[in-house]
Amino acid sequence: MGDNDSSSRPFNELDQAKGKRVIIKLKGGEEINGILKSFDQHLNIWLEDADENSAQKSRKLGDVLVRGDNIILISPSK
Amino acid sequence: MGDNDSSSRPFNELDQAKGKRVIIKLKGGEEINGILKSFDQHLNIWLEDADENSAQKSRKLGDVLVRGDNIILISPSK
Amino acid sequence: MGDNDSSSRPFNELDQAKGKRVIIKLKGGEEINGILKSFDQHLNIWLEDADENSAQKSRKLGDVLVRGDNIILISPSK
Amino acid sequence: MGDNDSSSRPFNELDQAKGKRVIIKLKGGEEINGILKSFDQHLNIWLEDADENSAQKSRKLGDVLVRGDNIILISPSK
Amino acid sequence: MGDNDSSSRPFNELDQAKGKRVIIKLKGGEEINGILKSFDQHLNIWLEDADENSAQKSRKLGDVLVRGDNIILISPSK
Amino acid sequence: MGDNDSSSRPFNELDQAKGKRVIIKLKGGEEINGILKSFDQHLNIWLEDADENSAQKSRKLGDVLVRGDNIILISPSK
Amino acid sequence: MGDNDSSSRPFNELDQAKGKRVIIKLKGGEEINGILKSFDQHLNIWLEDADENSAQKSRKLGDVLVRGDNIILISPSK
Repeated sequence: MGDNDSSSRPFNELDQAKGKRVIIKLKGGEEINGILKSFDQHLNIWLEDADENSAQKSRKLGDVLVRGDNIILISPSK
Repeated sequence: MGDNDSSSRPFNELDQAKGKRVIIKLKGGEEINGILKSFDQHLNIWLEDADENSAQKSRKLGDVLVRGDNIILISPSK
Repeated sequence: MGDNDSSSRPFNELDQAKGKRVIIKLKGGEEINGILKSFDQHLNIWLEDADENSAQKSRKLGDVLVRGDNIILISPSK
Repeated sequence: MGDNDSSSRPFNELDQAKGKRVIIKLKGGEEINGILKSFDQHLNIWLEDADENSAQKSRKLGDVLVRGDNIILISPSK
Repeated sequence: MGDNDSSSRPFNELDQAKGKRVIIKLKGGEEINGILKSFDQHLNIWLEDADENSAQKSRKLGDVLVRGDNIILISPSK
Repeated sequence: MGDNDSSSRPFNELDQAKGKRVIIKLKGGEEINGILKSFDQHLNIWLEDADENSAQKSRKLGDVLVRGDNIILISPSK
Repeated sequence: MGDNDSSSRPFNELDQAKGKRVIIKLKGGEEINGILKSFDQHLNIWLEDADENSAQKSRKLGDVLVRGDNIILISPSK
């Protein structure tokens, strides 16, 4: 949309974060933190070495598929 | 999206968990735990030997179809 | 998705439950219990001899169409 | 889905209830009760001689179009 | 769906109410009351001489476009 | 839907309000008030000289894109 | 919709804000503030040098992808 240069699209930017640690904020308030392995056009995401953190609890998830429609934002760790 | 190698997509990763026990976290707060038998492109899932656990109750479900749009995340048991 | 054998898809598994009693858990907290007569690709479901049970009330519905987008899970009775 | 006999689909079953009184339970908790005149593939419904009942109020609606995405279930009156 | 006679579909019934006063109940609890000028396949609606009424307030809107996905039901005034 | 005269559709009516001040009521309770510059088929809207008003706060936004799926209604100022 | 001049569509207006600082208001109440790098047809957005601000907390995010379906409005900073 207004992009004639496909390299500048949001999903192409996220593609640069593969293999790196990302923070994912979910609509339910939880945050998932893990290594970005892959994602698809719905923003379904596969993470490795993932943890879940919320006001209620923290736990280790290991491998996890996060369904894209729950995601508010994804940010590569600095 | 940014994947030219289809083997690296989230649903292909999940495919490796078939026949194994998975934990599914739902939007309503429940968690379903069972053996992953099959899933489709909407992430509708068929589990065997499944249990449902929430703050309110726990129960044995046996076979169960979970509708994909309720799912927050799916994680293969370690 | 990751299924080359169509017989292993969730909706094919559910098809085996036709004519049997199923429990349907809805997003609003109600559960509908009835004999599975038919369903479509949106998981709209037709039940016979159905009851509705919630924390608020229980009632006999008889024949009922349940709109698929309300459904959390469907489990054949054991 | 798993139906090779189209006559057994949920919407075909509902078609048999045309001209009869049905109860429609809505996501907001209201129930609409009226004579089923017609419906479409989104489950938008036209009723005649309809009433709306909720914990808050009851009122006569007469003719009414109910938008399908609000519907939890529809049950023909016994 | 189950209609071979297109004149009996819900939107065709609503078409008969053009030029008449209708009551629209919205998901947020408000009701909009006005003269039905036009609508489209998403049930987006254009009203003239419209009022908005809710438990919180009442106000005159005049011309108004109501986005279809907010609508619970539409009923022509008796 | 039931329109053979395209000039009578809701979005064509809204088109007449371009360049004029409109009030947009959002699902979250806020109202945005500004000059309607453009809109698309999802009812995404571009306003100029816009203000946001809610029970919590009021602020000047200037130019703003409002995503269509948040919109309850749009009414041209009288 | 009612636009024969594509330069006047909302997404084309937003395209003019690339490289500039924008404020994004989300459905959950948070606001994200950052430099608009790119966006797509779903309004998924890539920001650089971004901060998140809510009643609960403020934090620096750096690069971030915001999923479009969470967005209420986007306004270029004045």
